[in-house]
Amino acid sequence: MRTLTSADLSLNTATVSKQWTLAECIDGCARHGIGGISPWRDKLQDCGVDRAAKLIRDAGLGVSGLCRGGWYTAEGALTQTVLDDNKRAVDEAAAIEAACLVMVVGGLPDGSRDIDGARAIVTDGLSATLDYARTVGVKIAIEPLHPMYAADRACVNTTGQALDICDRLGNGIGVALDVYHVWWDPDLAAQIARAGKDRLLAFHVCDWLNPTRDMLTDRGMMGEGVIDIPAIRSVVEAQGFDGLVEVEIFSAEDWWTRPADEVLAAMTGALPSI
Amino acid sequence: MRTLTSADLSLNTATVSKQWTLAECIDGCARHGIGGISPWRDKLQDCGVDRAAKLIRDAGLGVSGLCRGGWYTAEGALTQTVLDDNKRAVDEAAAIEAACLVMVVGGLPDGSRDIDGARAIVTDGLSATLDYARTVGVKIAIEPLHPMYAADRACVNTTGQALDICDRLGNGIGVALDVYHVWWDPDLAAQIARAGKDRLLAFHVCDWLNPTRDMLTDRGMMGEGVIDIPAIRSVVEAQGFDGLVEVEIFSAEDWWTRPADEVLAAMTGALPSI
Repeated sequence: MRTLTSADLSLNTATVSKQWTLAECIDGCARHGIGGISPWRDKLQDCGVDRAAKLIRDAGLGVSGLCRGGWYTAEGALTQTVLDDNKRAVDEAAAIEAACLVMVVGGLPDGSRDIDGARAIVTDGLSATLDYARTVGVKIAIEPLHPMYAADRACVNTTGQALDICDRLGNGIGVALDVYHVWWDPDLAAQIARAGKDRLLAFHVCDWLNPTRDMLTDRGMMGEGVIDIPAIRSVVEAQGFDGLVEVEIFSAEDWWTRPADEVLAAMTGALPSI
Repeated sequence: MRTLTSADLSLNTATVSKQWTLAECIDGCARHGIGGISPWRDKLQDCGVDRAAKLIRDAGLGVSGLCRGGWYTAEGALTQTVLDDNKRAVDEAAAIEAACLVMVVGGLPDGSRDIDGARAIVTDGLSATLDYARTVGVKIAIEPLHPMYAADRACVNTTGQALDICDRLGNGIGVALDVYHVWWDPDLAAQIARAGKDRLLAFHVCDWLNPTRDMLTDRGMMGEGVIDIPAIRSVVEAQGFDGLVEVEIFSAEDWWTRPADEVLAAMTGALPSI
């Protein structure tokens, strides 16, 4: 397992989403010696894609991902609108040379109880986006989300399920593993081994707080919670993963309320817990 | 699949935990034509085990389970205190002729990040309880809890994981399937088939609300949420399950605030959604 330094970290802009623009995030990473960034699309678009690409390049940052494509179930069936938006996301990922486009695939359509149907929509959507992404050299990373988001955010809920989809769709698609979503999975180590280096496209960290006060916005800084992050990272790196370790923390009551420089300092300070 | 009637339902006392004693629950079931009951141990002990057994028998109710044993990780390691309490739970289940003793196995010990260790404690604990339960003819039902409870309530989080433990421990142990905990699992149908009739010891229903406002106490009445309960029941009954369908709803803001007779009427009114 690597000895991590700040240069191995990537700032997911959601971590300071209430505090900073993308340009401020880029400056902040440089200031704190953080080696990479992973923008959310709203921040990227606010900045302007071409300008963002230049700022990131000039700062010498890696781009561990673009968050996020997906939401294939948003309109109840796979529509051209949804597919076009994902195509734009691929283009944006290409423009900033992101290691992958992270996919939050979407939950149940409004009013639906058909999770198998939702999963079929998602697989079809990923297939279409992947076809395009291959032509521009962007990797697609399915992010399995915690099962508590199956209804409202993503109906792909385990690493094994994501890899089943990858198996079906072929090259150019893999998984974005976020410890928050997968730490509980008794099959995790086996599925990471199954994924292998080529399909481990992103590794996200934060922590599971106990108790958790909000299902979406109560994530902790690494070390604050109950996830044995080094244990998971060792399994991921045993497969040869050597990419940036991306820090993505949604924290309405705590980290989003602090000065962003304090958050970045806490990130680098948390290296021993990763 | 069966055509359910009120007589096929069982009232888990948690559903009206704020409103009724066990004696009132028993009377209520009789009044509403509900065929069974599943007491929580606190209600059972308040009533007195022998008195409860007589009241249940006199009312002609089936007993779909006793909630709950388990919590093997409560003291950080498997202690005699924990084992003794589970032995008492087995005796109580025997006294009321419960179809099974439902096991909520416990989460991470305080301060621990070792989920594999917690799972090892749980397996050892179940093994010990099972040894005793076999001598008095009580079935042990592991309830896999939703992964969002892995830290604080139960580190057995999928049906497959529960069945792996059952495979290891042998006869007399199976699973209590609650649709709330397992509905999202892409492997659910396969695992229900793997379980088979002899290991499908209980079937619990309620509904997953979208949005869910609280991780513990915001469950819905069947039909209010997004779970395709009939689809899951059909898979369970295809294995030969013909037991009571137990209704267990934790609902601080809604069902716990209503008159209990209204809750029971809603349960029987929800039969078409089960």
